[in-house]
Amino acid sequence: MPTINRRITLAARPVGMPKESDFRLEESPIPRPGGGEVLVQALYLSVDPYMRGRLTGVTTYARGLDLGEVIVGGVVGRVVESRDPRYEAGDTVEGMLGWQEHAVAPAKALRKIDPAAGPVSSALYVLGMPGLTAYFGLLEICRPQAGETVVVSGAAGAVGSLVGQIARIKRCRVIGIAGSDEKVRFLIEELGFDGAFNYRATPDYGAKLKELCPNGVDVYFDNVGGAITDAVMRRIARHARVAVCGQISQYNSVEPETGPRWLSQLVVRQAKVEGFLVTQFAERYDAGLRQLSAWLKEGRLRYREDVVEGLENAPRAFIRMLQGKNIGKQLVKVAE
Amino acid sequence: MPTINRRITLAARPVGMPKESDFRLEESPIPRPGGGEVLVQALYLSVDPYMRGRLTGVTTYARGLDLGEVIVGGVVGRVVESRDPRYEAGDTVEGMLGWQEHAVAPAKALRKIDPAAGPVSSALYVLGMPGLTAYFGLLEICRPQAGETVVVSGAAGAVGSLVGQIARIKRCRVIGIAGSDEKVRFLIEELGFDGAFNYRATPDYGAKLKELCPNGVDVYFDNVGGAITDAVMRRIARHARVAVCGQISQYNSVEPETGPRWLSQLVVRQAKVEGFLVTQFAERYDAGLRQLSAWLKEGRLRYREDVVEGLENAPRAFIRMLQGKNIGKQLVKVAE
Repeated sequence: MPTINRRITLAARPVGMPKESDFRLEESPIPRPGGGEVLVQALYLSVDPYMRGRLTGVTTYARGLDLGEVIVGGVVGRVVESRDPRYEAGDTVEGMLGWQEHAVAPAKALRKIDPAAGPVSSALYVLGMPGLTAYFGLLEICRPQAGETVVVSGAAGAVGSLVGQIARIKRCRVIGIAGSDEKVRFLIEELGFDGAFNYRATPDYGAKLKELCPNGVDVYFDNVGGAITDAVMRRIARHARVAVCGQISQYNSVEPETGPRWLSQLVVRQAKVEGFLVTQFAERYDAGLRQLSAWLKEGRLRYREDVVEGLENAPRAFIRMLQGKNIGKQLVKVAE
Repeated sequence: MPTINRRITLAARPVGMPKESDFRLEESPIPRPGGGEVLVQALYLSVDPYMRGRLTGVTTYARGLDLGEVIVGGVVGRVVESRDPRYEAGDTVEGMLGWQEHAVAPAKALRKIDPAAGPVSSALYVLGMPGLTAYFGLLEICRPQAGETVVVSGAAGAVGSLVGQIARIKRCRVIGIAGSDEKVRFLIEELGFDGAFNYRATPDYGAKLKELCPNGVDVYFDNVGGAITDAVMRRIARHARVAVCGQISQYNSVEPETGPRWLSQLVVRQAKVEGFLVTQFAERYDAGLRQLSAWLKEGRLRYREDVVEGLENAPRAFIRMLQGKNIGKQLVKVAE
């Protein structure tokens, strides 16, 4: 059994798009669990857009990281040693263990994963935080009705690709906005979206939305913000509901961006815009996971993982995700 | 009985702030009611911010006016001749009769007013559309809880001054934003607001809001938009609710304005922004009016009317309201 732990810490606060030099690969002894604690070996790390906010050092809904701290993030791993009766060596678990090969955590901060439910990595995706974000964000914040038009930005990303499919299950018309022709093909051909467009190749988002959403946009699930959202807001229908899940186009802005004001449009359309965090639905995670798992088994939710190998490549995986180079869920494989 | 009707029509589409020359005073014969119709003599006209939108000719939630049409608006008046069994000469009624001394309307488009309920002009204010807008907008869209901090923009206007008082009745801490020191005194000394500031004399809205709302803003009722709203959005508390009632700062913009993007703030605060029209609560108007009337009788709602005399001065009254020169409800008195 190895005795050296490798981990990735914050070396410098990123300015704009993070660089690999903002992160540092360090070695330290593998920690030992105390009473009520569990030692976990990481199998997969999750890299997600929200992590960008933690690197700024500003507390928003969660504490910003200090320089030198291990980068936060969800991990699925295998229990190596347990000092809590709820876990034993060999169990598969998920938790916020950060970018490191081994971590000690309180048993109550972990979630046990059933390896029979699917590939273990799904605990970081469809049967984990991104899946729950798509599920509750779409169904609870937007309450889509059959026949309505649902637009999703960041549609080929982890959350967006599930949002679109759940909206299809609810018999909505689903239009995706994504950043490459390959992503557009993925959305339409593999996931069954009714329409999609590549914003990088579309000069006039408004005209394209008018073509794809002739009756307006009843539901908008926004992962991106910026000019894409400006264009969608001009096309919202009466009583539209907008869920703001993320604003990835803004996370690397050095100065706050400006854009056209559209609050008058909310009045005219009697429309609602609501920001949410998946944690506000924590009491209902079990029900959400049961439904997601059922849809997965029925073949109604398809997904792609975009896997980078090796802990040392986690910063690169994070940066390519922020650049929109991934299709589906960006993961880092740390061990077999 | 006079035979000549005076009325004000749209002479030109305003560009930016309307000018008196955008309106025309015309004379025409007094119309006669047909079966099921009623002839009404106007006593008071209401001038309200929403009317600015109708002058552009663009259909939003209601049809824009054509050039030459009588300007729309709520009127309280006296029945001169009725050809419907529900009304008789001498009844007081309210309806969307427009800027004219006499109007014929279908009986079903009118509302009978009890003159014993208060001054007849209150049918255009506390016991009319602005009162219902404040009542349902605050209570249904924002759902304020005792002890919460409520901020109101356009606080000395017709709707804003009622919103603040209803929030006080619900035991909230109420901060008003208005455009003169006199308005600030009115809010604090006459209406019992907990705090208020004159944005025209405040260089840093953010610092002032921080001082007046140290725990953040739980509820924001927005009548104004623009830089005031930008500053409030930076101070919203967790689970804040924002009702967008109007955006008077934007109505006379020739080009759409830009401003800082704040959707990320909605995510961080798990907050909601919702636009509304009072008409969405039409089925519950009676209940709203009963409550407003009870509060009025109990002395819990105070109000000021800002009355301009003479139909020919309606354009001037409208323009001064758009310029924020009124305190309380802007009205035009047309006849005794």
